[in-house]
Amino acid sequence: MAYLDAGSSQRLNEAGRHALEQALDQGWADPVRLHSQGRKSALLAEQSISTIAQVLKVQRDEVHILPSGTHAAHAAIAGTAYARRRVDSPAIISAVEHSCVINATAALSQCQSLQLGVDQFGLIDPEELEATLRESGARFVAVQSVNQETGTTQDVQAIAQLCSAAEVPYIVDASHSIGHEQTPQSFDALIASAHKWGGPVGVGLLILRTGTPWHPTSLTQTLGVFGQGFPNVPVLAATAASLVQADQEHRSNRDRLMTLTEKIRAHAATLDGVEVLGHPTQRAAHLVTINVPLIAGDVIVEHLDRLGVAVASGSACSSSPLDPSHVLLAMGIQTYGNVRVGLSHTTTEADVDEFLSCLPRALEAIRATSAY
Amino acid sequence: MAYLDAGSSQRLNEAGRHALEQALDQGWADPVRLHSQGRKSALLAEQSISTIAQVLKVQRDEVHILPSGTHAAHAAIAGTAYARRRVDSPAIISAVEHSCVINATAALSQCQSLQLGVDQFGLIDPEELEATLRESGARFVAVQSVNQETGTTQDVQAIAQLCSAAEVPYIVDASHSIGHEQTPQSFDALIASAHKWGGPVGVGLLILRTGTPWHPTSLTQTLGVFGQGFPNVPVLAATAASLVQADQEHRSNRDRLMTLTEKIRAHAATLDGVEVLGHPTQRAAHLVTINVPLIAGDVIVEHLDRLGVAVASGSACSSSPLDPSHVLLAMGIQTYGNVRVGLSHTTTEADVDEFLSCLPRALEAIRATSAY
Repeated sequence: MAYLDAGSSQRLNEAGRHALEQALDQGWADPVRLHSQGRKSALLAEQSISTIAQVLKVQRDEVHILPSGTHAAHAAIAGTAYARRRVDSPAIISAVEHSCVINATAALSQCQSLQLGVDQFGLIDPEELEATLRESGARFVAVQSVNQETGTTQDVQAIAQLCSAAEVPYIVDASHSIGHEQTPQSFDALIASAHKWGGPVGVGLLILRTGTPWHPTSLTQTLGVFGQGFPNVPVLAATAASLVQADQEHRSNRDRLMTLTEKIRAHAATLDGVEVLGHPTQRAAHLVTINVPLIAGDVIVEHLDRLGVAVASGSACSSSPLDPSHVLLAMGIQTYGNVRVGLSHTTTEADVDEFLSCLPRALEAIRATSAY
Repeated sequence: MAYLDAGSSQRLNEAGRHALEQALDQGWADPVRLHSQGRKSALLAEQSISTIAQVLKVQRDEVHILPSGTHAAHAAIAGTAYARRRVDSPAIISAVEHSCVINATAALSQCQSLQLGVDQFGLIDPEELEATLRESGARFVAVQSVNQETGTTQDVQAIAQLCSAAEVPYIVDASHSIGHEQTPQSFDALIASAHKWGGPVGVGLLILRTGTPWHPTSLTQTLGVFGQGFPNVPVLAATAASLVQADQEHRSNRDRLMTLTEKIRAHAATLDGVEVLGHPTQRAAHLVTINVPLIAGDVIVEHLDRLGVAVASGSACSSSPLDPSHVLLAMGIQTYGNVRVGLSHTTTEADVDEFLSCLPRALEAIRATSAY
């Protein structure tokens, strides 16, 4: 079986799993308690958070853990918007942000929002952002580093400079950067999800630079290492260890994965009626999306699955894989027959070859039984 | 080492750990995806939720999973209060509820709250509740089944009948019942936390009876099996398996633990200057709190820890163990020198004997070096 849906989910990596199992033995006690078991848990939590800060090159007290990437996005957006509630300017996001960023922004009370359009590759126009900031200012700007469907990378450095010049907080969704591409260093708030880098499910990361305006909007959006609820030390330890592994693997594997995704892009483009989406060079190493007009993406996924290849279809980051993709819509591409291929550090060339040999067979079989 | 702080936290039990490790291998894929790995995850999630429903004797679609017991409490309280926002009556809770219930109720906008006082054992007066319901009605009533510090059990059956007669939703915090005492069956909403029964950290359970008024108040309070964020199938599988084990152990161990906590109560009461708190008979089998006036609880905890016994001090369920206990304050007891002993199903008589032999030695040593 070739598993090529690492963009949705992948196994907890070995270092993360080892740390989780160790911490289930050593870090299960309540870290706020004063007995030695509690102190052992507290020490493990402290070491874990320091490791996360070190890998991401941020300060230890800038690291906050929330119950999911979605919770981290809501906390970042609602908290920043509320802290700047006296700024009478819209929230500016890109049209291809993850649905949780779009939903959190739409849910803000007394804050208009403004979506930056993208070109056919999924890139925003920094000049348009600059003009918008000059014209209306902004409550905050949220533009992702890597798109979750196409892998297109935005120029976060340039965006950060524009926001900094306009004195507007810049929130970057780095969910598909950490452990895959270089982690953005210029931002005011960064959000991520541990399971996207091979870490445990149930961990949203929020990095808030010292001095970034932020205010809680509900009691379950309290920050700190653990936010609200019982401190989950085993999962925090797994987060730190998996991040160290993913960060090292990204350094040693990125060129290899870039070559593999280039192979997919080049080969798929030669197939009849197949379009390769996203920017050809400004892109992450681990994601490719193709589009096959007139064939439903879920039908392709099911055919490929029967041939032993797992990929994702539809709106790859919404709650239902059958919803149309707002990302492709914003790129001016029809959203019917899209298939996302996601590679992890364990993906081999044989996995990719299997996909490339199965894809034309799947399309042929579907077309043979189709009325179109 | 005798670990007697299971009221704060205990190890993930064997069935939960086994299920977690299996699901890390088998249930890591995204259950909303259409490939076979995704379908395997979806099936595991479905089986887990059915198991939870079966053990708790509720309908499958009445079970909702949130990121912690605190999140479950906030969702239950905010969601019920909002659904009944046109009911111009206060929220009624007991003065000894867990801090997350008190905080969630205090945070409600446009809803007064009213705290029912308790007697010296921590029991509310059902007649007072009846009179209050008759006089003012209620947005909702929240009274726990077992108190987290003293182990005193409220008469949830009688409370449920009063609420039902007044047509007011009854929310029961059953965090210290499930896996320890009989799970309440008469309620409109039930909240619990898996790690309190030996399950995984990071799972709050909300059971909402069909027909109970409830409305989400924020996007991160969405319900369903997984609420908001990526579906955490491994932890859901661990929750179900640990619940089955805890439920069986409670049946076979309850009498044994009741005898052990009775032994602690009887023995501690004979020690000079030691008071045993909570109701002598209307109590859970696994919790005892004692009070030693003029000695700080954390000093006792530290002395006992050096002698090899782990217990909890202070406000056993607030975020800081050094905060005064609102539970003991409500019972009219000074909150300075309280120590909570929490037993799990793995606690032996030898553990209890070790505590009982160490306690007078610790108190003697503290008094010998004290100015009082």
